[in-house]
Amino acid sequence: MKVYKANILYTKEKDHFEVLENGYIAVGADGRVIKVAADPASLGIDISQPHTTWNDEDVEFVDFGDRLLIPAMNDLHVHASQYRNQGLAMDLELMEWLQSYTFPEEMKYADTLYAERMYRHFVHDLWRVGTMRVCAFATIHTESTHVLLRLFQEAGMGALVGKVAMNRNCPEGLSEPLEEMLKGYESLIAEMLHEASLPQNALYPPLVRPIITPRFVPSCTPEMLRVCGELAAKYQLPVQSHLSENKDEIALVQELEGTWYGDAYNRYGLFGQTPTVMAHCVFTEGEEMELMKRNEVVAAHCPTSNLNVTTGIAPIRQFLNEGIRVGLGSDISGGHNLSIFQMMVYAIQLSKAYYQLHREQPYLTLSEAFWMATKCGGSFFGKVGSFEPGYEFDALIIDDGKLNHDNYSLLERLERYIYLGDDRQIVHRYCRGKEILEPKD
Amino acid sequence: MKVYKANILYTKEKDHFEVLENGYIAVGADGRVIKVAADPASLGIDISQPHTTWNDEDVEFVDFGDRLLIPAMNDLHVHASQYRNQGLAMDLELMEWLQSYTFPEEMKYADTLYAERMYRHFVHDLWRVGTMRVCAFATIHTESTHVLLRLFQEAGMGALVGKVAMNRNCPEGLSEPLEEMLKGYESLIAEMLHEASLPQNALYPPLVRPIITPRFVPSCTPEMLRVCGELAAKYQLPVQSHLSENKDEIALVQELEGTWYGDAYNRYGLFGQTPTVMAHCVFTEGEEMELMKRNEVVAAHCPTSNLNVTTGIAPIRQFLNEGIRVGLGSDISGGHNLSIFQMMVYAIQLSKAYYQLHREQPYLTLSEAFWMATKCGGSFFGKVGSFEPGYEFDALIIDDGKLNHDNYSLLERLERYIYLGDDRQIVHRYCRGKEILEPKD
Repeated sequence: MKVYKANILYTKEKDHFEVLENGYIAVGADGRVIKVAADPASLGIDISQPHTTWNDEDVEFVDFGDRLLIPAMNDLHVHASQYRNQGLAMDLELMEWLQSYTFPEEMKYADTLYAERMYRHFVHDLWRVGTMRVCAFATIHTESTHVLLRLFQEAGMGALVGKVAMNRNCPEGLSEPLEEMLKGYESLIAEMLHEASLPQNALYPPLVRPIITPRFVPSCTPEMLRVCGELAAKYQLPVQSHLSENKDEIALVQELEGTWYGDAYNRYGLFGQTPTVMAHCVFTEGEEMELMKRNEVVAAHCPTSNLNVTTGIAPIRQFLNEGIRVGLGSDISGGHNLSIFQMMVYAIQLSKAYYQLHREQPYLTLSEAFWMATKCGGSFFGKVGSFEPGYEFDALIIDDGKLNHDNYSLLERLERYIYLGDDRQIVHRYCRGKEILEPKD
Repeated sequence: MKVYKANILYTKEKDHFEVLENGYIAVGADGRVIKVAADPASLGIDISQPHTTWNDEDVEFVDFGDRLLIPAMNDLHVHASQYRNQGLAMDLELMEWLQSYTFPEEMKYADTLYAERMYRHFVHDLWRVGTMRVCAFATIHTESTHVLLRLFQEAGMGALVGKVAMNRNCPEGLSEPLEEMLKGYESLIAEMLHEASLPQNALYPPLVRPIITPRFVPSCTPEMLRVCGELAAKYQLPVQSHLSENKDEIALVQELEGTWYGDAYNRYGLFGQTPTVMAHCVFTEGEEMELMKRNEVVAAHCPTSNLNVTTGIAPIRQFLNEGIRVGLGSDISGGHNLSIFQMMVYAIQLSKAYYQLHREQPYLTLSEAFWMATKCGGSFFGKVGSFEPGYEFDALIIDDGKLNHDNYSLLERLERYIYLGDDRQIVHRYCRGKEILEPKD
C-alpha cells in the first residue's frame, strides 16, 4: 500500500469539491484508491508508529506537505498527427484549414520516422501538461499508428489511439481502400490482444488500446462506416469521431446519408453500441441529443476549437441537464492549447458567452468544469478521474507556492492554479497508481 | 549607437507584418530607433571591419542569432491593486464581484507595506510577461500610489499610474473626500514635475507619470468629475476610466447624469480633451462611437474580462473601421491573465465569436491583434510599439527554440509563440532603449 499526504481536492459530484486539508490517500498494489481520509487512523494505520511499520504491511508513505493533490487530466479529443500545426493558421475556417494545412500534414505520417519524431513531442507534452489519459486521432497510416501506441505504452500513460478511417472527400494520399483499412485495424487489434494476454495485464485492460475512428461521416463511404461498426462490435472496441461541428458539414451529411448526423453514425453501429465519444456537438439538439442520451454517447467539448475554427459554442449546460456525459478535449490543432486546465477556463468562459445569449442556461461553475476534466471525462477510460474507493489512482501533485502572494484557501489556490498556473507547477504525475516520469522528447 | 541583429518582426500597418530575416536594428544613445535594415551597410556600417570600429563611433553590437526581436507589449488597462485577486471568484457577475472581492481588497492598500508587497509582485510579473508600458489603476490611497510609481521608476518600465478618484456608490473605506483627493493628486504631480526637471529627463517626459483616474461615472459625484477634468487640463495629464462595460452600469449613468456614458465624461473634460483611454466600450455605438472618434479617445479592449465578467464582446472591428485606436488590456482581476500575448489570442477568438453573430464584421487577423498590442496601443505612450525611425526602442527578444519541432517560417514562429509561448521564451526586455533586468519580486 502507498499512502500519500497532501491537500486533496477532487469532485465526486459536479456541484462541489471534496476538500481535505492535510488529507491522506491510500492506494493499493493494484493502483486503485483504497480510501481517502482526514487522518491515517481511519486508514487502519497507527500514526504513533513509524510509517514503515504501519498496518503490519509495507506501507510506502510520501508526505507532499502543503502541495495540492488532484486527479490527473483527461483529454477526450486530440489529433496527435496535427501536433506540428498547433497554433498555426488560426485565420482560416474549418474546410479551408483542413485542405491547406491539416491534410497535407497528415500525409507526412506515411513516413514512420517523421511520425515517431512528432509523436514523441506529442506524448512528451501531454505528460508535461498533466494529461494522463487521452482519446487520440492518429492518421490512416497503420505503421505510424503502431508507433504512437508504442510511445504511449513506453510512457505508461493511458490512451485510446485511433487509426483514422477515411476513403472519400479527401486528398488521394489520405484515402485508404477498405481492405487496407481493415487489415491495418486487425494488426493493431492483434497487438492489443497480445498485450492483454501478458501476465502483467491480468488485472486491467491494457492502458493503451485502439479505438475505432471513422474521421467523420463525410470522409467515409457507407461501406467503410459499416465495417467500422462491425469492427467495434466484434472486438468490443470504443468509437470516436466528430459530430455536428459546423453547419456546412451537417448539410453535407444530410446530403450524403439522407439523414441527420447522429442517426448516420447510429445506423452503422457507431453511436453508443460500444462506448462512444463524439467531438464538438456544437449544433446537437432535439432527436440527436435524445439519441446521445439514450445510447450514452459521451460529448467531447473542445472550447478553444469552438472559438478558433469559428464553429459556434456547444450547448454544454443542456448536455449536463440531460444527464449526457461531457469531457473536455484540446482538439489540437483546431484547438491551440494542449492543457486541459486551460480547457476548463475556456469552457467556463464560453459558457458565459453562451449565457449572454441564452440567459435561461446558467454558465458553468469551476466544480462543473473540473468534474468534466476529471471524473466525467475520465469515465470514458474506466474508473478514472476521482479518488473514491476503487478508482484508478491517476493524480497530479501541484506545487503552487510561486502563485501565492498571500493567504488563500485551498479552493482559491486550486482556482488560481487552474486560471494562472502551467506545467511548471506540476511536480509529480501518476497514472494507474504508478509515477510517470518524463518521456523522451 | 547600438546595433542588434535578429529576426525582426513588427507591424507598421495593421494589415501586415514587416519581417526581416537576420535583420539589423540601430538604436541611438537617446533610446530611439535610427533604422531597421536588411544589411549593416545601409546603416552606414562597413561590415568588413570589426564591429567595434563600425561607423567611426562606438557601436555596441549584439547578435541575437536565430531569435525573434519584436516590439514589447503595452497593457492599456490593468488594476494593479487587484493583483492578489487574479484568477479568483470568476463565478460572479460585475457588481457582486466588486462588492465582495474587489472593494475589500482595495481597502487593504491603506497599508503601504501591504501595497509595497503586492505592487512588487505586480511590477515583477509585468516584466516577466514582457509588458514594458502600462496604464494602471492603483487605489484612492496616495501613499500607496507613490509606492507604485516608485517601483515602476526603479524597474525602468513605463507606466501611467492612476490614483483612483471615487466618492459615491462605494464602501466608506474607499470613498475619499474631494479635498483629500485633490491634495493627493497634487502631491503625485509634484513628484512628477520634480522628476521631469532632473537633467537625465531632459530628452523625454518621465517614463512614469500620474494619469487622472475617476474610477467610473457611478462612483464619482459631479463635483469630483469636474475636479478630475480640471486637473487633467491644468497639468495636461492623460485620463483613464471605464466606459459602457455593462448594461446595468450604462442605465445607472443615465440615471445619475441624465445623459449617455461618453457624454457624461465629455461634459467634465474627461473624454479626449487630454489623451484619454477608456476600458471595455462593450456597448459603445452611435453617438458615443462618433464622439470617441472625434475626440481621439483610445479604447482598451480587455477580451478575457469581457468573457469572465460576462459583459459581452466589444465591437472591435467597428472601432478599427471607424479609425478609432484600440489597444489591449489585461484588466486584472476581471481578466485572469497578465500576458498581452494571450490578450492577442483572446481578442482574435472573441472577434470570431462576434463574427458568428455578425457576419458582416470579419474577425481580427493576427497582424491586427499584434498591431493593437504594439503600435496602436503603444501610441498612448508616445512613439512606442514600432521599429520605425524615431520610435523608442521597446523590444523583446524571444528564444522560441523549444517550440519548434520542425521548420517554420518566421511568421509561423511568431504565431506559434503568441499562441503557445509564455514568459519562459522571453530572454531580453528593453524599454526606451535600455535593457530592463528582473525587478525584485
